[in-house]
Amino acid sequence: MRVTFREQLDSLRGSLVVMGSDVTSAMRWATQSLLEGELDPASRCIETAAAVRQRRDEVEEAVVTLLVRQQPVASDLRLALASLHVAADFERMGALAEHVAKIMLLRHPITAVPPEVARVARQMADIAERLAWKVTGVLETGDATQAAELETDDDEMDALHQQMFEVLFGQWPHEVKAAVDAALLARFYERYADHAVSAAQQVVYLVTGVAPAKQD
Amino acid sequence: MRVTFREQLDSLRGSLVVMGSDVTSAMRWATQSLLEGELDPASRCIETAAAVRQRRDEVEEAVVTLLVRQQPVASDLRLALASLHVAADFERMGALAEHVAKIMLLRHPITAVPPEVARVARQMADIAERLAWKVTGVLETGDATQAAELETDDDEMDALHQQMFEVLFGQWPHEVKAAVDAALLARFYERYADHAVSAAQQVVYLVTGVAPAKQD
Repeated sequence: MRVTFREQLDSLRGSLVVMGSDVTSAMRWATQSLLEGELDPASRCIETAAAVRQRRDEVEEAVVTLLVRQQPVASDLRLALASLHVAADFERMGALAEHVAKIMLLRHPITAVPPEVARVARQMADIAERLAWKVTGVLETGDATQAAELETDDDEMDALHQQMFEVLFGQWPHEVKAAVDAALLARFYERYADHAVSAAQQVVYLVTGVAPAKQD
Repeated sequence: MRVTFREQLDSLRGSLVVMGSDVTSAMRWATQSLLEGELDPASRCIETAAAVRQRRDEVEEAVVTLLVRQQPVASDLRLALASLHVAADFERMGALAEHVAKIMLLRHPITAVPPEVARVARQMADIAERLAWKVTGVLETGDATQAAELETDDDEMDALHQQMFEVLFGQWPHEVKAAVDAALLARFYERYADHAVSAAQQVVYLVTGVAPAKQD
């Protein structure tokens, strides 16, 4: 019975891998549309975010089915809840990618990212994508060693967020609107990274069975 | 057995009521510190947000215990998951109140809210508090009729968010920093309201047993 529960839970990991892969692509497309002014990737991002929302519902339904069929012990239940946490983080990451795409669409054909902030935005986007890609990789391979790197990546993200504010609060030659857009974009990338780190803690739990330390 | 599960789940509602009440207070304190320049309510807000995080963990633990003791049917399980959703929304609302308090602390003794945006900020704060108070009331009384009003309140919030941008993108006489702060504050209030509406859908499910329509 126990083995079956874990095996079934493991098969849920497949759905989470697809979600992780989708939110990685969604943010890549959002960034591409933002920095290169292309409309098509923005649409793909928005469609993908909707698909991710749908898949989260399916994961929840699958967990309910699994829990009804089996009588799991507490440790199994905690793993099932960890899967739900990961699905929730991925859903938010999809929504944040969508926010980036929507700022691009709102300002198009004017760019929401003037040259002064394009470099920092690109770096934030690269880290965001790398974090999502790594957490998806840990889910897929079950190899948790990469997860440790995520904290370092997240520190880099925080430093870039700070840099963005320094640019905006220095000699800003553009309208207030462009500064507000850039501040919101920075926040979206940073939140995306936070959710990736949060997902990674639960993913490590899923693949190793070792519970994450409580954050405060 | 079934009745016992529902009864135990109902007792969990007590913890959710405390969380809802706490996040209502947390946002009220954050707003008070923001608009009146008082430091003490900001500290209380931050402490309360930490307590709410802690209580969410306790709710999750209680759900695990409940599910291990009983063998719930699918409908019971969905109600248990709905409780977890509400706890997650409340935790985010606490964190968003904390973000408001932290912007105040970051700028103190300068106000983060110049007169041009103080009125809109106050209105957003009032709606945020009202939404959280209503959803907590539905949880406490089990009377779902008030929940319908939340959507209207949320529409008002969206309109205010729009107003805020109009002020910022008009003749803004202050530094870029103040505009960015105001835009972020508006986003925090709006997200807080979104989470209250999302929590309300699950709360209606908890108190009536009628599943919410899927959002897209």
